[in-house]
Amino acid sequence: MTEQKPPLGDMPKEDFRRHGHEIVDWIADYFERMENLPVLSPNQPGDLVNQLPKSAPDAGEDFADVFSDVERLILPAVTHWNHPNFHGLFSTSTSAVGVFGEMLAAAFDQKAMLWRTSPASTELEPIVLDWLRQMMNLPAEFHGIIYDTASVSTLHAIAMAREKLNLRIREDGMSGRADLPLLRVYCSDQTHSSIDKAVILLGLGQKSLVKIPTNERFEMDAEKLSAAIRDDLSAGFLPFCAVATVGTTSTTSVDDIEKIADICKRNNIFLHVDAAYAGSAMIVPELQFHFKGAQFADSIVTNPHKWLFTPFDLSVLYVKDLDLLKKTFSLVAEYLKVAETVTNQMDYGVQLGRRFRSLKLWFVLRYFGREGLIARIREHVRLANLFKSWVEESENFELLAPVPFALVCFRAAPPNIEDLDAFNENLMNEINQSGEAYLSHTKLNGKFALRLSVGSIRARERHLRKVWDLLNE
Amino acid sequence: MTEQKPPLGDMPKEDFRRHGHEIVDWIADYFERMENLPVLSPNQPGDLVNQLPKSAPDAGEDFADVFSDVERLILPAVTHWNHPNFHGLFSTSTSAVGVFGEMLAAAFDQKAMLWRTSPASTELEPIVLDWLRQMMNLPAEFHGIIYDTASVSTLHAIAMAREKLNLRIREDGMSGRADLPLLRVYCSDQTHSSIDKAVILLGLGQKSLVKIPTNERFEMDAEKLSAAIRDDLSAGFLPFCAVATVGTTSTTSVDDIEKIADICKRNNIFLHVDAAYAGSAMIVPELQFHFKGAQFADSIVTNPHKWLFTPFDLSVLYVKDLDLLKKTFSLVAEYLKVAETVTNQMDYGVQLGRRFRSLKLWFVLRYFGREGLIARIREHVRLANLFKSWVEESENFELLAPVPFALVCFRAAPPNIEDLDAFNENLMNEINQSGEAYLSHTKLNGKFALRLSVGSIRARERHLRKVWDLLNE
Repeated sequence: MTEQKPPLGDMPKEDFRRHGHEIVDWIADYFERMENLPVLSPNQPGDLVNQLPKSAPDAGEDFADVFSDVERLILPAVTHWNHPNFHGLFSTSTSAVGVFGEMLAAAFDQKAMLWRTSPASTELEPIVLDWLRQMMNLPAEFHGIIYDTASVSTLHAIAMAREKLNLRIREDGMSGRADLPLLRVYCSDQTHSSIDKAVILLGLGQKSLVKIPTNERFEMDAEKLSAAIRDDLSAGFLPFCAVATVGTTSTTSVDDIEKIADICKRNNIFLHVDAAYAGSAMIVPELQFHFKGAQFADSIVTNPHKWLFTPFDLSVLYVKDLDLLKKTFSLVAEYLKVAETVTNQMDYGVQLGRRFRSLKLWFVLRYFGREGLIARIREHVRLANLFKSWVEESENFELLAPVPFALVCFRAAPPNIEDLDAFNENLMNEINQSGEAYLSHTKLNGKFALRLSVGSIRARERHLRKVWDLLNE
Repeated sequence: MTEQKPPLGDMPKEDFRRHGHEIVDWIADYFERMENLPVLSPNQPGDLVNQLPKSAPDAGEDFADVFSDVERLILPAVTHWNHPNFHGLFSTSTSAVGVFGEMLAAAFDQKAMLWRTSPASTELEPIVLDWLRQMMNLPAEFHGIIYDTASVSTLHAIAMAREKLNLRIREDGMSGRADLPLLRVYCSDQTHSSIDKAVILLGLGQKSLVKIPTNERFEMDAEKLSAAIRDDLSAGFLPFCAVATVGTTSTTSVDDIEKIADICKRNNIFLHVDAAYAGSAMIVPELQFHFKGAQFADSIVTNPHKWLFTPFDLSVLYVKDLDLLKKTFSLVAEYLKVAETVTNQMDYGVQLGRRFRSLKLWFVLRYFGREGLIARIREHVRLANLFKSWVEESENFELLAPVPFALVCFRAAPPNIEDLDAFNENLMNEINQSGEAYLSHTKLNGKFALRLSVGSIRARERHLRKVWDLLNE
């Protein structure tokens, strides 16, 4: 059936309704059959490109034809992040209500720059983020703001720290100035690469980033941080920012925020805490001890799109000094001047417009409730520790890092294997190519380590059992 | 009816299907009844906040209750960007198929960092952007990459320009270096504030940004650009980047790219073209003359979420030197190392993960086709010029800027009114408060100017007639 498409305007209402229902049903089926699809796309590089026309069509196509290509061309090219056996990188997944939030946000198509261009987004966001703050047991002096990714949240945090120096960098910049010393930022050798990207972008240079060694548990050595700052001060450098991590990307190790905060305070250094992954675990009472000292941070980033069942993207930056954030970025062009004394979200970042991202998080917090979310994260931690116990009890495997949250770093170490690195890399590749599960890797003390992350809302004990069986085959 | 919610896992399939259908129907109705809703939210600041609980619920709620609050609380707080009488800022709107794209993208929940984590997004994106490039009549040497907003696209362009200097800024930064002169970026006094934010963030400082005066048509004066560069070179500064705009935010004025490119070439300056708004008009053959010289640019930004019926956010940066972009940002942590020699999207920007944004643009280009999109943009330009003719023919109004695209800058200037600024501001506020239409303003040569933008996929001649009647009442 060829659809009647008007020469102007949008898709007719009845077509929207019909196709919309088809898509909802398709997604419902997708969520159900996902477990039988290969986790990693079996495509080879170029497979999708080679099936696509080289130019856009001149005349419009029936949407039915477009949609059938989603099943035919797109689905085989998708790596199923929601799959219960996606254990690579960090296992993240959306919930159904998260999808509902994105549907409505797309329909409203808000660009929340000024309050008046979206009172809904401007006012829902701080409320929902305050709900989350309470769940995370953070003090009320933290104010949240949503960005797209943790990379961008952290970029804003370090920009704030730079602005706090009061060295007229916003106005005069850093080049061609004899009065500025080398500025220094501190993190550990386990810190996420987004810190490197932020210092590059900010013009501080990779040289400004000091990577403090970690202990045997991959936690920043606070003594060495102290020493590095002392040395830098003696050398005439200017320490101004430190990044502590709760839940590093490689092993989910936990820096001692309390100790680091104390050092920062003594040296007047801005402290940013990267809890992009593990921040969601702060809602679980028995896990809150990992975040001891978080109240002393100047800013904290957490990503509900990682472990709070919210579709990508939604990263939250909590800051104590909202005025400093505004001072770092606010610029109001004439065509954006308004008489109201209201919050205008454009004043708090490099992006002028913002999507209505709080809607999906509001849905998630309300549909599952605080208890429902705690139960799900608690279960993931239980499953990871169960897997850890299997590793520890086996003669053919060994644990390579502590398991504070829901990531297990381990390797196969059967007797009589000489090159364990090659053996484990092959093991990982075989499992990944089988489509049954997706594991990723890291290097720990020079050893090739397998990483198993538990985070899908669909993950059950049988999925962990399946991976364990695959590893033992 | 209280829903049975499992203690773990996601919403049951039948609930997803039922609520999903309800949401689709609600959106279908919303698109239809939108015209009868006030364009600007009638809410007062705090109205939404005051209706929301101060904490998240402990126990999960029925989704039916959550969804009913969308109609009750959220809808009145929404400013309807899709409304055919949204003429403020830039009138932008989503299409139905754009919403479909976001539904599926949310369900797939791709984080396209590595090729293997989303072959679908990694491979569809360059294809769809090449389709758009051809439609825009840009040479094949331009490669597209999607970011969230034009602010971020432009930030990346200027970062590339800085990297191209080969001054080890990525490695050594800019502070504490006696060898670096003041770096200089050029734009016009009509350029978007995102350029200011970019130079602030990059550590170049607002002082590095030279705003070249514009002529009576609000176009950058190329002679003055030449002179400014010459003066800066004499002063020992280092000119390295210029931003030309096609379709400025205030008036949609058009800088002469060809002339500016020639100056940049002679001075070895990176040329970025900001066509965030007007880039979509490049697909219309009779409008392409505005972009003469675009082929000489190093980078061009255009936002399909502005005028190509694609939901926010989707900004495209076209660059000639993709390797330079990679060199500016690429950093590969151990846990992200892969054996394949493939494109990994994380290498091309500050954001590590990327949403599957190309899907919605693919839907838009296929459903409407090249001809359907041209017809819609052409109609908007026709409507804006029709409105312009009414202004010109009226004794009570005057035109304040040329109309190259679909924005009219004008004011009421009836006889016997002393304070025209106050008169026009009141006129605008009255119309905006009526809910019938939304106009915004700017200042042109010291005069308070009304801005009427035509861009909604729903805009028809009767909507423009309505605004004209309101203005004349």
